[in-house]
Amino acid sequence: MCRWAAYLGEAVFLEDIVTAPCHSLIAQSHCAQEAKSPTNGDGFGLAWYGDRPEPGLYRDILPAWSDPNLKSLCRQIKSGLFLAHVRASTGGATSRMNCHPFISGRWSFMHNGQIGGFEKIRRALENSLSDAAFDQREGATDSELFFLMITEEDLAGDPQGAVSRATSRVIDASRRGGFEPALKLTAAFSDGQSLYAVRYTSDGHAPTLYTSAFRNGGGRCVVSEPFDGDGSDWQAIPPSSFVTIGRDGMSIRPFVPAAAKLALAV
Amino acid sequence: MCRWAAYLGEAVFLEDIVTAPCHSLIAQSHCAQEAKSPTNGDGFGLAWYGDRPEPGLYRDILPAWSDPNLKSLCRQIKSGLFLAHVRASTGGATSRMNCHPFISGRWSFMHNGQIGGFEKIRRALENSLSDAAFDQREGATDSELFFLMITEEDLAGDPQGAVSRATSRVIDASRRGGFEPALKLTAAFSDGQSLYAVRYTSDGHAPTLYTSAFRNGGGRCVVSEPFDGDGSDWQAIPPSSFVTIGRDGMSIRPFVPAAAKLALAV
Amino acid sequence: MCRWAAYLGEAVFLEDIVTAPCHSLIAQSHCAQEAKSPTNGDGFGLAWYGDRPEPGLYRDILPAWSDPNLKSLCRQIKSGLFLAHVRASTGGATSRMNCHPFISGRWSFMHNGQIGGFEKIRRALENSLSDAAFDQREGATDSELFFLMITEEDLAGDPQGAVSRATSRVIDASRRGGFEPALKLTAAFSDGQSLYAVRYTSDGHAPTLYTSAFRNGGGRCVVSEPFDGDGSDWQAIPPSSFVTIGRDGMSIRPFVPAAAKLALAV
Amino acid sequence: MCRWAAYLGEAVFLEDIVTAPCHSLIAQSHCAQEAKSPTNGDGFGLAWYGDRPEPGLYRDILPAWSDPNLKSLCRQIKSGLFLAHVRASTGGATSRMNCHPFISGRWSFMHNGQIGGFEKIRRALENSLSDAAFDQREGATDSELFFLMITEEDLAGDPQGAVSRATSRVIDASRRGGFEPALKLTAAFSDGQSLYAVRYTSDGHAPTLYTSAFRNGGGRCVVSEPFDGDGSDWQAIPPSSFVTIGRDGMSIRPFVPAAAKLALAV
Repeated sequence: MCRWAAYLGEAVFLEDIVTAPCHSLIAQSHCAQEAKSPTNGDGFGLAWYGDRPEPGLYRDILPAWSDPNLKSLCRQIKSGLFLAHVRASTGGATSRMNCHPFISGRWSFMHNGQIGGFEKIRRALENSLSDAAFDQREGATDSELFFLMITEEDLAGDPQGAVSRATSRVIDASRRGGFEPALKLTAAFSDGQSLYAVRYTSDGHAPTLYTSAFRNGGGRCVVSEPFDGDGSDWQAIPPSSFVTIGRDGMSIRPFVPAAAKLALAV
Repeated sequence: MCRWAAYLGEAVFLEDIVTAPCHSLIAQSHCAQEAKSPTNGDGFGLAWYGDRPEPGLYRDILPAWSDPNLKSLCRQIKSGLFLAHVRASTGGATSRMNCHPFISGRWSFMHNGQIGGFEKIRRALENSLSDAAFDQREGATDSELFFLMITEEDLAGDPQGAVSRATSRVIDASRRGGFEPALKLTAAFSDGQSLYAVRYTSDGHAPTLYTSAFRNGGGRCVVSEPFDGDGSDWQAIPPSSFVTIGRDGMSIRPFVPAAAKLALAV
Repeated sequence: MCRWAAYLGEAVFLEDIVTAPCHSLIAQSHCAQEAKSPTNGDGFGLAWYGDRPEPGLYRDILPAWSDPNLKSLCRQIKSGLFLAHVRASTGGATSRMNCHPFISGRWSFMHNGQIGGFEKIRRALENSLSDAAFDQREGATDSELFFLMITEEDLAGDPQGAVSRATSRVIDASRRGGFEPALKLTAAFSDGQSLYAVRYTSDGHAPTLYTSAFRNGGGRCVVSEPFDGDGSDWQAIPPSSFVTIGRDGMSIRPFVPAAAKLALAV
Repeated sequence: MCRWAAYLGEAVFLEDIVTAPCHSLIAQSHCAQEAKSPTNGDGFGLAWYGDRPEPGLYRDILPAWSDPNLKSLCRQIKSGLFLAHVRASTGGATSRMNCHPFISGRWSFMHNGQIGGFEKIRRALENSLSDAAFDQREGATDSELFFLMITEEDLAGDPQGAVSRATSRVIDASRRGGFEPALKLTAAFSDGQSLYAVRYTSDGHAPTLYTSAFRNGGGRCVVSEPFDGDGSDWQAIPPSSFVTIGRDGMSIRPFVPAAAKLALAV
């Protein structure tokens, strides 16, 4: 499992969220409080939007707590929309290509959770990708693969639907693989305009997700766990939710996999 | 603080101590049980003796738990005398030159603890080095500096005395720097023939140190904390002890800094 | 393109071939003389056989010329059978998983050359792998994929035939992909007993390959380019050759892809 | 020796100078044309000024040509004042702390050249530092040490004089060390407002230095070697020159070490 934080609002220094708060994401890399494991030391990453439609990407394999580049970048860079992630591997090597966020064109994506039984269905899921999506695969994680799956499900036109349909593909592949689906999916992604997040599990406990306004400035954070104890007013996002944050506000809608939707519709 | 393990005996695979036991040094890099901090993820290192008088050295900055090279090297290399270390920085960057063990000629050295107030006396201690020792300084840690100090205190002729005199130099420098000495020194070192360890603190609690025979084979381990719960019969080394392990057995002697010794002798 | 060196014989220090000679493999990482590009700075690797049937593996992403671990390991480790490689990427990121040698069970493999047009046939070739071979894929290189292909072609029973059949699969995939095959294959591999090498190209110039006895000691080297100018008596291996080196001597046989073989047989 | 490029003007994407031109700094990391060695693969670094008085700093040990973070950062970050460097070590390990630029407060500095005989006078020069400057030393290079020396020579009040006096200290230390001074100093530095560069050698050939307006936009580059063949109109800076570039223009003045100055004044 991992920890992440995302922000949309007026431009702020990344350090205001990633490194400066008392329980910042970097602090969480060393001692997370609501994660299965307190240590998230298997690499980290940043995707931030600036003057281009595509995000900048900085990922490395050191623990976030010991990387001086990360501290300096967060201190220097201002952005009105960014994703930041610290990794605790559930499998897959510690390499830059396995660190989140992943990007494709103007999209960025990061994930806390896992596709349970991934080793049994990895090949089937990879084969389900279009050639264009397959060619973008650089690493070996379930998370990157899930991201590539949503990019080919009309992600731009229907972000929630794209996640819903990709979730359904994972559930179907698990069943065809002969085991009960065990997907844990607490993820955030963005196209450079809006910030989306999902909290879902096919079984058991969904990884935590919180949101809060940031400094009364109209900005908003979505995070794995709160990064301060006092200044903010954190709201827990319920399981099976899809969050959309835009310049004009936030909506939280129920989230179910596409197949379940279809089944309910019948 | 850090964790370390050392071995002298008939040649064994390094993995038998470093990676394979249930609470191996690699496990301790993730969740040490007797350290101030459970995480020792700021790099690691191995020094092992083979066919040459000088040890081989392998150090890197990833957490030990995520380095596939470390696993493979420990699985492949057999040695009858080696030192292994996982680092939790008390200051100083995460760089290879700051990872233990340190080597000089045929000597190797690793340390758990710290020179309290090091930033106030670092320059004085470095200036106390001979040119030959100063030129060997590669990193910025208190541990490497202490090692270089013992190398110029007749280390070959009187290992315990060398540590005792270097300890005294640190204590003196602290007092001249205007503060109470705060040295924590649980260290191991070797010349490729014998294995030495010291447990000492100038104040408060000395970091833990244990020893045990290894597999009834005549080999012996010295470690920060036991790496298994059952197969071995661990003996806690008392504070203010100096341990000498040779091919013919082990001795544990009282250890005091040289200045204190002189004072007692008067 | 890359540079590599392999050795079979009585145990020697790895440094005798990898780092010490005037034009050692490390020197070749900086200024190769017979390669398309003089710089081979995109990582390196060692696979060496010792007391286990499986090789040890050490790979890292720094240029070989600047890695102190590599120097120390080569100075300390003795082996009677090893493969060493310095990489110049023809595509694919600089990551440990993309560095040679690759290993699978007791087999190790390294490659100088490339599968021309790889991006067009990568997916088809990966899909041609068995599930067992596919699951071992860690990186993204053409070289690792070729290695996995030979492991499922009766590599143990018929090493030359395995390479021949895998070569044929690449040629076939290229033609089905609509382009002329452009495979450059100068590779070495071992099962821990014998050392095999192949020099082949489907078009144009095959990367160079040389062999020499080593120090009159019964040992033998196979290399991309000679590592000294005087002490050895290098023999250029002709294109379309398959080399087998065992404890009892060397054979050099003509090498053709399996399909061509079949065509000849008709 | 190394290669570097610096820019002052209206904000541009770093990639416009660092990665995009045909003979960009990244291209020079692989095949520099006017350097003693064509390969500058021992790490790299960026210092750029933005919304704070202090620069951001990004340094890493991979060759610049193979670091995807560098490419992405240069593509995303805009700055009106930045320094970029690719390193070819003349001694000293490949570590982040040994990569240029170095920073101190709002100052940044990078260097092509070396202090000849540095190993003989390193200790004397380090001991000549004030405690405040000494405490900022993180690495082991001659370049960082020279930078720390100028920071304590009234750098803010008299930039050229500071370099002149530090140069003199190096020359004096060399003579006291018993050898002819062999300083090669082609360096750039900035306080976030102006951009300074020096080209000097105490003997032989001074490393090259060029300047050019950038894109008719009022911006100006100072570089080790031109990064394009056509669009710009490069002017070679003569040896023994000190360059000052401000928002209002550029001046090139003769540069001599302080001691020589004094001697001339007498």
